[in-house]
Amino acid sequence: MAHRKESVVLLIHCKDRRGIVARVSGFIHDFGGNILDSDHHTDEETNEFLMRMEFASEGLQIPPDEIAAAFAPVAKTFEMRYEVRPSSCRTRTALLVSKQDHCLADLLQRHKRDELHIDIPVIISNHDTCAAWAELFKIPFTVYPVTKETKPQQEQQVLSLLKEHRIELVVMARYMQILSGTFLSQIGCPVINIHHSFLPAFIGANPYRQAYDRGVKIIGATAHYATEDLDEGPIIEQDVMRVGHRDTVEDLVRKGRDLEEIVLARAVRRHVERRVLVYGRKTVVFD
Amino acid sequence: MAHRKESVVLLIHCKDRRGIVARVSGFIHDFGGNILDSDHHTDEETNEFLMRMEFASEGLQIPPDEIAAAFAPVAKTFEMRYEVRPSSCRTRTALLVSKQDHCLADLLQRHKRDELHIDIPVIISNHDTCAAWAELFKIPFTVYPVTKETKPQQEQQVLSLLKEHRIELVVMARYMQILSGTFLSQIGCPVINIHHSFLPAFIGANPYRQAYDRGVKIIGATAHYATEDLDEGPIIEQDVMRVGHRDTVEDLVRKGRDLEEIVLARAVRRHVERRVLVYGRKTVVFD
Amino acid sequence: MAHRKESVVLLIHCKDRRGIVARVSGFIHDFGGNILDSDHHTDEETNEFLMRMEFASEGLQIPPDEIAAAFAPVAKTFEMRYEVRPSSCRTRTALLVSKQDHCLADLLQRHKRDELHIDIPVIISNHDTCAAWAELFKIPFTVYPVTKETKPQQEQQVLSLLKEHRIELVVMARYMQILSGTFLSQIGCPVINIHHSFLPAFIGANPYRQAYDRGVKIIGATAHYATEDLDEGPIIEQDVMRVGHRDTVEDLVRKGRDLEEIVLARAVRRHVERRVLVYGRKTVVFD
Amino acid sequence: MAHRKESVVLLIHCKDRRGIVARVSGFIHDFGGNILDSDHHTDEETNEFLMRMEFASEGLQIPPDEIAAAFAPVAKTFEMRYEVRPSSCRTRTALLVSKQDHCLADLLQRHKRDELHIDIPVIISNHDTCAAWAELFKIPFTVYPVTKETKPQQEQQVLSLLKEHRIELVVMARYMQILSGTFLSQIGCPVINIHHSFLPAFIGANPYRQAYDRGVKIIGATAHYATEDLDEGPIIEQDVMRVGHRDTVEDLVRKGRDLEEIVLARAVRRHVERRVLVYGRKTVVFD
Repeated sequence: MAHRKESVVLLIHCKDRRGIVARVSGFIHDFGGNILDSDHHTDEETNEFLMRMEFASEGLQIPPDEIAAAFAPVAKTFEMRYEVRPSSCRTRTALLVSKQDHCLADLLQRHKRDELHIDIPVIISNHDTCAAWAELFKIPFTVYPVTKETKPQQEQQVLSLLKEHRIELVVMARYMQILSGTFLSQIGCPVINIHHSFLPAFIGANPYRQAYDRGVKIIGATAHYATEDLDEGPIIEQDVMRVGHRDTVEDLVRKGRDLEEIVLARAVRRHVERRVLVYGRKTVVFD
Repeated sequence: MAHRKESVVLLIHCKDRRGIVARVSGFIHDFGGNILDSDHHTDEETNEFLMRMEFASEGLQIPPDEIAAAFAPVAKTFEMRYEVRPSSCRTRTALLVSKQDHCLADLLQRHKRDELHIDIPVIISNHDTCAAWAELFKIPFTVYPVTKETKPQQEQQVLSLLKEHRIELVVMARYMQILSGTFLSQIGCPVINIHHSFLPAFIGANPYRQAYDRGVKIIGATAHYATEDLDEGPIIEQDVMRVGHRDTVEDLVRKGRDLEEIVLARAVRRHVERRVLVYGRKTVVFD
Repeated sequence: MAHRKESVVLLIHCKDRRGIVARVSGFIHDFGGNILDSDHHTDEETNEFLMRMEFASEGLQIPPDEIAAAFAPVAKTFEMRYEVRPSSCRTRTALLVSKQDHCLADLLQRHKRDELHIDIPVIISNHDTCAAWAELFKIPFTVYPVTKETKPQQEQQVLSLLKEHRIELVVMARYMQILSGTFLSQIGCPVINIHHSFLPAFIGANPYRQAYDRGVKIIGATAHYATEDLDEGPIIEQDVMRVGHRDTVEDLVRKGRDLEEIVLARAVRRHVERRVLVYGRKTVVFD
Repeated sequence: MAHRKESVVLLIHCKDRRGIVARVSGFIHDFGGNILDSDHHTDEETNEFLMRMEFASEGLQIPPDEIAAAFAPVAKTFEMRYEVRPSSCRTRTALLVSKQDHCLADLLQRHKRDELHIDIPVIISNHDTCAAWAELFKIPFTVYPVTKETKPQQEQQVLSLLKEHRIELVVMARYMQILSGTFLSQIGCPVINIHHSFLPAFIGANPYRQAYDRGVKIIGATAHYATEDLDEGPIIEQDVMRVGHRDTVEDLVRKGRDLEEIVLARAVRRHVERRVLVYGRKTVVFD
């Protein structure tokens, strides 16, 4: 997945028709682009066409920031939604966190090793518990406490800060607040959440307790895009781990932390590499 | 798990108290038994004690079929439920099947290789589709067709046949009928079912279709003891498999078959080896 | 993976150059083809380009059996090796087996459910042990016994029979003979083998014994193309399973059977769907 | 696995004989101990008996530090090697690290959440790269640089420091030096190492490169006790992850880090909880 060359990703979503691949690859070829990776999927039930093409920046006879405009006529012909994204362009990402720090710490370490190819202009929390991590990695940390009563105002504070930092992606790294529909409708960028169960099993609060009580032999974690319907957003990634009768609820919580970190990090990475396309309640993940 | 020696398994369930292990292992030692394997679990929430001890038959100064009676005073002291089971004693198992043959065929092949240590006196179906498998493995095959109207009578036919064959375990190898509460209350032996999802996700009909529509990245299968509450019985074993956006519902069904076979076979094997103890809605699996 | 429409697969292998995707998708579009699936990979170390395109047969303005010839000029331009394969065309597959029947039985059951999209004109064995399976599935079964002395002659018998049946793929379903270099150089079609370990660990004889003695916590199985260097051929698929200290060698053998069946079946399916391309000692698997 | 009560673990290794379980559980019962967990394994090939018993401290009529002496006569009768370990007693653990910090950082975070139940009196490195982590977690950090020429002296420095801190366990958290036989013979405590492959595949240097070149479809990591024979020590834990043709060597390294962290942490935890017994080249892991 790690291309050694600078590249540009083109993501496309439209109704399936004959000739899309030929037309799009022809477009790239006309500007001197060498396709490094291409993958597409046609949903035969809904006739939707979803494609990801990645081509080398080297040799391109057009500046990367003019590609989107140049592509507009093609997109119009096929009524496409599309995104053009140079790999040189890091995704401006805000992390939301509450008291539990493991997902935050994990993302920051990956960020430092440059696994994720993001910028993190700000970390926002409703508690000051995780301030030391922000300090260690030299990232601004803002605390907006929240109560049931102040939630609307607090969400507006968060929104303002996201706007101010021109955030393109919000990652809820175990942020234990439910985002309101108002918030999500105003945010203007995707939000990735990690739920600590194998969705759709154990929706809602205390999924590890629920899993323990049901006596499952495997637990899971699910990264998904946040939507107004809690835990119902399109799933990006899931993974699981065996548990047994000797595991207490506390053991499930402990084991689950490893899952949560890994699943969330994979989802962020895939999103940032523009490998994920949402359609309906589902995602296509090109990897 | 495969002991080379003839052995006896002792399964125990009671409230936890001091001295159970010492008392039980002392009992076995007094009769010249050499313990091959012992495992126990105390549920600290409910204070329940569950134990499995397996000891060599060789050198025992008591016939295996007299151990249960000899153990009765110990059991009484600790108010135990218990079972004594010599490994030489195969579990008389009936298979229930409908039209889909993969789990049936899988169990029959494992039976022939003697992986399962069972006798199969009879296969019962509501269709004649799987008759050739029964014939190939030379096992009596009885068809009791069923409709909504005839269900009570058909269940009585099945019950009679199970009694006649002194069945100790019923395995639903994709038997697509819901067993009534009446049937389950009269059957007098455990029933193992395979559900084609990662329970408690996707309870009920068409779980692969549900999984497809929800866009999960992993599918599963669950073997559990059948209870009156559909898909709510104590879970014995689960396993999972990755799927992707390219997989259609038909692909999930195909991939799921492998899971169903393996998960069901593991559950049957563990039950037959007396490795499973039910308590509340859950199981302890000693393996 | 299961397309509902008749389709044609085009597999391509060449040195990477600008414009391949555009040229090939243009070719398909020119003949009225609608691309259902396309995937390609460029190995940046070796500059090799490997591609799979699948397009609908419906609407094609050229008979499928003329596509290869029509494509020749494109292939020449880019010095491509390529294959054109209509999905309507089943791969003529011979199964080789010795005494252990589990992989054979598994493949035959999948074949009957039409999971594999192959024809099986013949099963060849050095023993008559598996004859009943061939009979059950009504497939000709030929026994060519082999000893150290008669091996060259026996291999010639096998080769003749493969030629006679115009075999396109040979699957060693636990065929416990090493194929000679002479045999492999004359066979003229790929051979898929299943090795009962996680290669390159435990090459050679008795891998389960080796795994037991080393005390590994996980066992595996590996499907690969057979080459003259035993167990060194390009790997198509691998999978693994946990084992523990309670598992004897016999338990590893038993657990391994499930792995062997599943891994071999996946490899055959992927090969038959033309999802596998070999380059160097490695494979690209488009799935 | 997380017992809520203070407890004592008794680990036993001897030749199998009749009556061991009865004698040991009787011993515990005589002193008022309530057994929380017991597990044992008899290797039927070598006739070795390995057992772990964990009993509640509450109600014990003997101080924990006198149990070992009280048990000596029993141990003598059966010629046992044994260890008595109260859960209140944290294992004094030294971490060895080089430049790569991910395993170190992971262990420190688990330590802070008290997942591991260890004390870390010192971190030792041949580089100062990881000093910031030690500082963040307020743990003394000692750098002993090493060259080919100074290796014997450096190892003596390390040994002295370990002795000074009465270290009971050394964890090589990606310490990129091979420990000499001299060092290992003098250290007087177990050393756990993490090897970044699925042993015994890819022994030695650059296992991810080796895995890439061989084209495996799954990579792994192995935690084992260090012995003089590099990568040949008894395996404590292994885990694996899928990879594909799109993954470069750098991707394998990145994905492997997650495996390394998790596998090493599991091994440390199991060792510290006295769940691991070595016999021959193998381990028994009671979990």
